[in-house]
Amino acid sequence: MLTQDQIQEARQRAARLLEEAGIAITEAERDGIEVSDFGLSELHQTGLELVIYVNTQRVCAKELVMFPGQTCPEHRHPPFDGTPGKEETFRCRRGLVYLYVEGAPVERPTCRPAGADRGAYTVWHELVLTPGQQHTVPPNTLHWFQAGPEGAIVSEFSTQSRDDLDVFTDPDIARITVVASS
Amino acid sequence: MLTQDQIQEARQRAARLLEEAGIAITEAERDGIEVSDFGLSELHQTGLELVIYVNTQRVCAKELVMFPGQTCPEHRHPPFDGTPGKEETFRCRRGLVYLYVEGAPVERPTCRPAGADRGAYTVWHELVLTPGQQHTVPPNTLHWFQAGPEGAIVSEFSTQSRDDLDVFTDPDIARITVVASS
Repeated sequence: MLTQDQIQEARQRAARLLEEAGIAITEAERDGIEVSDFGLSELHQTGLELVIYVNTQRVCAKELVMFPGQTCPEHRHPPFDGTPGKEETFRCRRGLVYLYVEGAPVERPTCRPAGADRGAYTVWHELVLTPGQQHTVPPNTLHWFQAGPEGAIVSEFSTQSRDDLDVFTDPDIARITVVASS
Repeated sequence: MLTQDQIQEARQRAARLLEEAGIAITEAERDGIEVSDFGLSELHQTGLELVIYVNTQRVCAKELVMFPGQTCPEHRHPPFDGTPGKEETFRCRRGLVYLYVEGAPVERPTCRPAGADRGAYTVWHELVLTPGQQHTVPPNTLHWFQAGPEGAIVSEFSTQSRDDLDVFTDPDIARITVVASS
C-alpha cells in the first residue's frame, strides 16, 4: 500500500532521473508515472517506476526507472489468448542493473533482495547490464532485477503487457498497487 | 548505391549524434549502424541510419538517426504470414521530425522531399513530433517522414521488421542498399 504522498514523491524523483538522463517525456507522461510497490509497502526496496510509451495488442514499450538498490521481484509472464506470453528485452540506458534469469546460478550473487530469505527468489543466473547492454527474456521464464547503487533506467521492448496475468514467486505480492485512502 | 567511404562517414556522424543525445550503444552496434540510401544514391536527401536493438518474430526496437532534412521515403508494411503487417510507433527523442500519414492533407506541407514532383509521395496528413512526442502508424498504411533542420533521433517500437516486404510508392526505390565494389 502506498499513500498519495509517497506516489507523488516517487513520481517526482523518477521524473528527475529521466530528465538527468536526457530522456524527454510529456507532461501527461510525467503526471502519470506508474509507481508500483507490488503490494509489499516497501517501495524503496521492492518497487518500480514506469513510463508506458505504448501498449497495444501487439507491441509494448516502457521506460523503467529504478532507485538505488530497488528490486523488481521475481515473476514470469504466462501464455494467454493463444500467445506464448510476454517476450521482453531489457536495455540499460543509465546506471547499472543486475538481471537474474533461469540458468546456472552464480556462486556469489551480487544482490540479496528483501524476501530472499523466505523463498521469494529462486533464479540466480546473474547478468550485469550497463548502458547500451541488453538481454531478451523468453516468455514464461522466471526473472527479477535490481538496480545498482546509483539506480538505473532500463528500456523495455516487448509484446503486449498484461500485468494482471504476471505470476510472482512471492505469494505476498500483488501487481496492482493499492493506494491508501486519505 | 553507396561507397564504403560514404557508409563509414554516415556511421560516424550517426554515432556522434547518438552520443550527443546521451544514447549509449555498444561498439558492435556502432560498427554495425545500418545506412540506407533506398537505392537512390542521394543519402543526405533520402536515407536513414539505424541501430537495430532487437528484431525477433514478435518484437522489434530500433533507433533511427536522421541528418538535417533527411527523408525516409513513403512506404507501407503489408500483411504477411497471417499477420496484419508491421505496426510501428515513432517516438521523437531529439530534434524534430515531420511525419506524414494517411488522412486529411495539410494545405501547405512543411516538407517537399526530392521525388515529390514525380509522384513518389501521396499522403500529406502532417504531424510534427518533438522530443517526447510519438505516433503509432497502423499496419499497411502509407507513411513517410523528414527530419527538421537539426536532424532527429527517433525510437521505433514495432512488431517484427521485414524490410524486404516493404512496399514503396516510388518504383525507383530498393530497400536493400547496394554497396559499390571498390
